[in-house]
Amino acid sequence: MLLTGAISFAASADQQDASPIYGVRLPADYRQWQVISVAHEAGSLNDIRVILGNDIAVAAYRNGQRPFPDGTVLVRVAWKLVPSPRNDAIFGRAQSFVAGEPTNVQVEVKNSKLYGATGGWGYGQFESGKANPDAALIGTCNACHRKLADGDDLVFTHYSP
Amino acid sequence: MLLTGAISFAASADQQDASPIYGVRLPADYRQWQVISVAHEAGSLNDIRVILGNDIAVAAYRNGQRPFPDGTVLVRVAWKLVPSPRNDAIFGRAQSFVAGEPTNVQVEVKNSKLYGATGGWGYGQFESGKANPDAALIGTCNACHRKLADGDDLVFTHYSP
Repeated sequence: MLLTGAISFAASADQQDASPIYGVRLPADYRQWQVISVAHEAGSLNDIRVILGNDIAVAAYRNGQRPFPDGTVLVRVAWKLVPSPRNDAIFGRAQSFVAGEPTNVQVEVKNSKLYGATGGWGYGQFESGKANPDAALIGTCNACHRKLADGDDLVFTHYSP
Repeated sequence: MLLTGAISFAASADQQDASPIYGVRLPADYRQWQVISVAHEAGSLNDIRVILGNDIAVAAYRNGQRPFPDGTVLVRVAWKLVPSPRNDAIFGRAQSFVAGEPTNVQVEVKNSKLYGATGGWGYGQFESGKANPDAALIGTCNACHRKLADGDDLVFTHYSP
């Protein structure tokens, strides 16, 4: 009974750190990963974002390898896009926008066996390091990524040299 | 005479890869460095940019160390900010902007002895991997950075977690 309790507790702690549906976790060292590209989503998101990749992702991008190999992990980090009055004053015109507060971090993991039903990809979204537990939200990821052309292997981002 | 000639030739090749005034070079491995932050300059620049740092820079940012120690190198990589009709079609609204063609790469190097006359910083700008030879252009870097508050140590970018 004690053993069962311990296992249940571990599973519960586990779930807090992993996304619903896919069980994707935030990689511990993602903030040290290399840059794949950057982007800006306007409208209600109004963010500026960087897409980082682990070594497997970087190699696949540089070699043009598609589909991405198992073990590929991409992390999208986003911050609110905010004007910089300080920079604008120095530059003498209103033109400078910088990263404000972090919004969320999204992770996609390639594992063709584990995520075969979703084209080989699993997804997660993290706020302040915690997995967003909203299964309905996480369920939308793949539906949107599947709208990409086949050659993109369900990945929006291209490499920026 | 032959020796002198060889030295002159080496100096000439050297100058092609180094910035005027400061002799700053593009670090060979900068594209693998960690992200400090991202930004967007509107107006005539219309770019999206990532600021990368070497290990000394990253440690100084994370530890809040100012002034930055000698050996700090910051690299700003910029691309034209372009709309993504593909993404907009998938998202169902015009909101997505991505990195287009690279514009230039700017580098600043902290060396309090070598660059004592410019607050400890040397500057360079690189297009397609080649140092921009325009001394008038490179001469403007420090004048602008010096407009920052003392606590910034002549560096615009703050770290984005």
